[in-house]
Amino acid sequence: MSDTAVGTENAGDENAEGRARGGRRSAGGAAARRAARSGGQRSPAMPYITRKVPIYEVLDEEALVTIETNADTVLEELGIEFRDDEEALNLWKHAGADVKGQRVHFPPGLCRDLLKSAPSIFTQHARNPERNVQIGGNATVFAPVYGPPFVRDLEGERRYATIEDFRNFVKLAYMAPSMHHSGGTVCEPVDVAVNKRHLDMVYSHMSLSDKPFMGSVTAPERAEDTVAMCKILFGDEFVENNTVVINLINANSPMVFDDTMLGAAKVYARHNQACIVSPFILAGAMSPVTVAGTLTQVLAEVLAGAAFTQLVRPGAPVLFGTFAASISMQSGAPTFGTPEPSLVSYGAAQLARRLGLPFRTGGSLCGSKIPDAQAAHESAATLNMTLLAGTNFALHSAGWLEGGLVSSYEKFMIDVDQLGMQQRFAEGVDMSENGQAMDAIREVGPGSHYLGCAHTQANFENAFYRSSIADNNSFEQWDIEGRKSADQRANELARRWLESYERPALDPAVDEALQAFIRERKDSMPDAFS
Amino acid sequence: MSDTAVGTENAGDENAEGRARGGRRSAGGAAARRAARSGGQRSPAMPYITRKVPIYEVLDEEALVTIETNADTVLEELGIEFRDDEEALNLWKHAGADVKGQRVHFPPGLCRDLLKSAPSIFTQHARNPERNVQIGGNATVFAPVYGPPFVRDLEGERRYATIEDFRNFVKLAYMAPSMHHSGGTVCEPVDVAVNKRHLDMVYSHMSLSDKPFMGSVTAPERAEDTVAMCKILFGDEFVENNTVVINLINANSPMVFDDTMLGAAKVYARHNQACIVSPFILAGAMSPVTVAGTLTQVLAEVLAGAAFTQLVRPGAPVLFGTFAASISMQSGAPTFGTPEPSLVSYGAAQLARRLGLPFRTGGSLCGSKIPDAQAAHESAATLNMTLLAGTNFALHSAGWLEGGLVSSYEKFMIDVDQLGMQQRFAEGVDMSENGQAMDAIREVGPGSHYLGCAHTQANFENAFYRSSIADNNSFEQWDIEGRKSADQRANELARRWLESYERPALDPAVDEALQAFIRERKDSMPDAFS
Repeated sequence: MSDTAVGTENAGDENAEGRARGGRRSAGGAAARRAARSGGQRSPAMPYITRKVPIYEVLDEEALVTIETNADTVLEELGIEFRDDEEALNLWKHAGADVKGQRVHFPPGLCRDLLKSAPSIFTQHARNPERNVQIGGNATVFAPVYGPPFVRDLEGERRYATIEDFRNFVKLAYMAPSMHHSGGTVCEPVDVAVNKRHLDMVYSHMSLSDKPFMGSVTAPERAEDTVAMCKILFGDEFVENNTVVINLINANSPMVFDDTMLGAAKVYARHNQACIVSPFILAGAMSPVTVAGTLTQVLAEVLAGAAFTQLVRPGAPVLFGTFAASISMQSGAPTFGTPEPSLVSYGAAQLARRLGLPFRTGGSLCGSKIPDAQAAHESAATLNMTLLAGTNFALHSAGWLEGGLVSSYEKFMIDVDQLGMQQRFAEGVDMSENGQAMDAIREVGPGSHYLGCAHTQANFENAFYRSSIADNNSFEQWDIEGRKSADQRANELARRWLESYERPALDPAVDEALQAFIRERKDSMPDAFS
Repeated sequence: MSDTAVGTENAGDENAEGRARGGRRSAGGAAARRAARSGGQRSPAMPYITRKVPIYEVLDEEALVTIETNADTVLEELGIEFRDDEEALNLWKHAGADVKGQRVHFPPGLCRDLLKSAPSIFTQHARNPERNVQIGGNATVFAPVYGPPFVRDLEGERRYATIEDFRNFVKLAYMAPSMHHSGGTVCEPVDVAVNKRHLDMVYSHMSLSDKPFMGSVTAPERAEDTVAMCKILFGDEFVENNTVVINLINANSPMVFDDTMLGAAKVYARHNQACIVSPFILAGAMSPVTVAGTLTQVLAEVLAGAAFTQLVRPGAPVLFGTFAASISMQSGAPTFGTPEPSLVSYGAAQLARRLGLPFRTGGSLCGSKIPDAQAAHESAATLNMTLLAGTNFALHSAGWLEGGLVSSYEKFMIDVDQLGMQQRFAEGVDMSENGQAMDAIREVGPGSHYLGCAHTQANFENAFYRSSIADNNSFEQWDIEGRKSADQRANELARRWLESYERPALDPAVDEALQAFIRERKDSMPDAFS
């Protein structure tokens, strides 16, 4: 819970970031301008949201204390399983936990004590330092969809994702002014061998974008590869002293961490890289059907998992993560954007703040198969909560469809437009003299209009958020133009963006070193497809 | 700002409500059960939302005081026009205002002083007292779309609305568990003469639903007709002592009230009926392009208009209304669901609470021509704000399309599903022992699942909100079932509801008296169509 991490973590190789950055400044600017011209948001790209509006909370002090007490009971009485990882169990034994088989029981206060070394705010560095993001405090960072094996492509086909799709989503995220992060597995490139695709994924983020990105967590050696590539991009010493990659460590709810996730968490924490310890909750299946019960379990799991990173390396950045959805009690199908997961996420955000950890939840989740009204309503319910809860890192902020099975180009474009709206909302109310607009009211007076008044003219450009998706023309105009729905306009916009994409410059020596590393690693192992 | 209105307003004819109610209890219950069976929400119909979650506010004390000071300056320095209504100007003169022509300038504090007699909470009575709604405090009441001349019908055609459409929307609102109000001009029945249609509209609300409703405001004599019909339904004395109809009085922004609205406001206030004094704001046209400037003008207009109702009859219920949208600075087209109008509405809610008046804003506004992702996103942004702002009365909560030009059956069904979600969210977090679910966590333990545990079984029915629109089945199932979008499912649901509608019983003598009144009034005037 140290607040000093931001101030001290730059102590390493301060020139390291410069190594990878030849020419990116002008390229990034041009791309942003093009995005704006081709129907993009009026705002210039901002590296992250600095929230000037208040947060929204649903739990009072008594409820919070009850949940915290219950979570402590779960930790002590039931314990959490750390499976198939002797090293992890030994670390817990040495820390004073009561380890029975693979089950770790935590004495009261142990996890909280360990978490005192974790920073409440840290910086994730990008190869373009203008894209560095703050994780924690009043910052919100939007990152794209993570994990889908399928895409819904621009021809409307639902099919397995490829590395070409992966690259396309990285490009779109790079071009979207209100997308702050390049994300991780924006889709699963299933046309690349499962044991090699992490190399292509990480390289895509490094070469096609200059925004911060996520690392591989599907095996400890893939996490090591990620760190090795980061060292090529940022320099060895810079990586050991700064956070350049953020990584999703899912709990196997209820109350289990498996060896895959523990292995990746150990690699990243050891290298001072950030872990998002995230219970993946479909309430009713992986947690109780109630909000308070779910929050209790989430808190217990995060306390154990996040504290574990501090056993590995005190001070390593770690986030309190919560993926909250529920299931249909009739069919068992996952459901998104409903009221109960919103309450869970709002509550978890409060618990995270009390723990002094940055918080991850939300995004633009939905269960719909297509980018229709269901998709939009469920995504909006999730996204509105995401910002108001004070979420610091929001995975799945754009492109998520069909419960996370599908990355959708159209949905991506619709979502990033909404991210822009959230960013504008977060600016709050301008109470400057210009914002008060008394001159305008005096100039116009009763019965007239403001269209041409001096104040309106002076504020023309920045007056209102301009949607890149909405059609606000008359019915007649819309009719003449082919009666297009939002998803059709999104399709056209995605095509325009991809056509006008320009790669941000990367130092050729760094690029060649990355490619050489990938070749060597790929040559060292046979293809595996499962 | 008296809190006593709820306690005292029932002093009149306490048996009056009973007159109109033969048999409605069983009919209403059956309809609600049918609605639930045909894919409706799991919750029983609740008369209104009693918010158990906190409100969200965007302005701090300093900002609020600045806006209030600026509004006082507008009222004194610029004044508000009360057009073509000598009586109104005379009332203001006698109250101590400085009247120059049609422009009324208000000495500091005059409007606020007058508003001390207005109730901060009151009850709007329905003919079925189980449907009575609280207006103010921690209550939120959802009412349908108001005003569109067009409908998008169930065959997908956009055409002028008819009285048959009007009746259909009243039926759907009656059947929707989370729609608390029958509304007013749910669409304009343009097949009925303009000077007579108010009679058919009010009769439709009275006879096809037993929920509370709104009155005609398009001419003083139509307001009188509304009151006369209310007296037939509720009894003379009951109407004079209780609020049975709520009425939309739009300011002609900027800073004008016209004789039509003033005429209707006078009729309703005199009869102790509720007025919603609502600046209709497309920011950038009717108000400054900034949030703070818009709020200043809104507050000034509401202060003048709401205080006017207290000049007519001290103690008459009046709401602080705000219709907030903005315009595209490029095309001039109105835009909805964007960040700036949300900030305006959040701020206006705070100003209303400080004034001690119930607050109206929001709903499910959108600019889209069809119920697509644009419609859903814009509606969701508006509706989420509506609840979190602490809005007491939300017009346009369902059915609004195309900037209010169109009432849509499909959009109506999609929206009422979302209203149910808001209602569930407003219940907040259950912190009871059952809510804490420690038994469930103990029973299940690490590595298992909650699907079959005793706690899940015991909470099966009420576990999660069940959407009537969302399809959460697998892609394969959805594919087999015809790949339907949300609007297609909404279309089918609207048809099912309309087929299974059953009219709530109405005392035949009352019904005959209402019909006789309508015949007499219609016979007294020639048809007018403009």
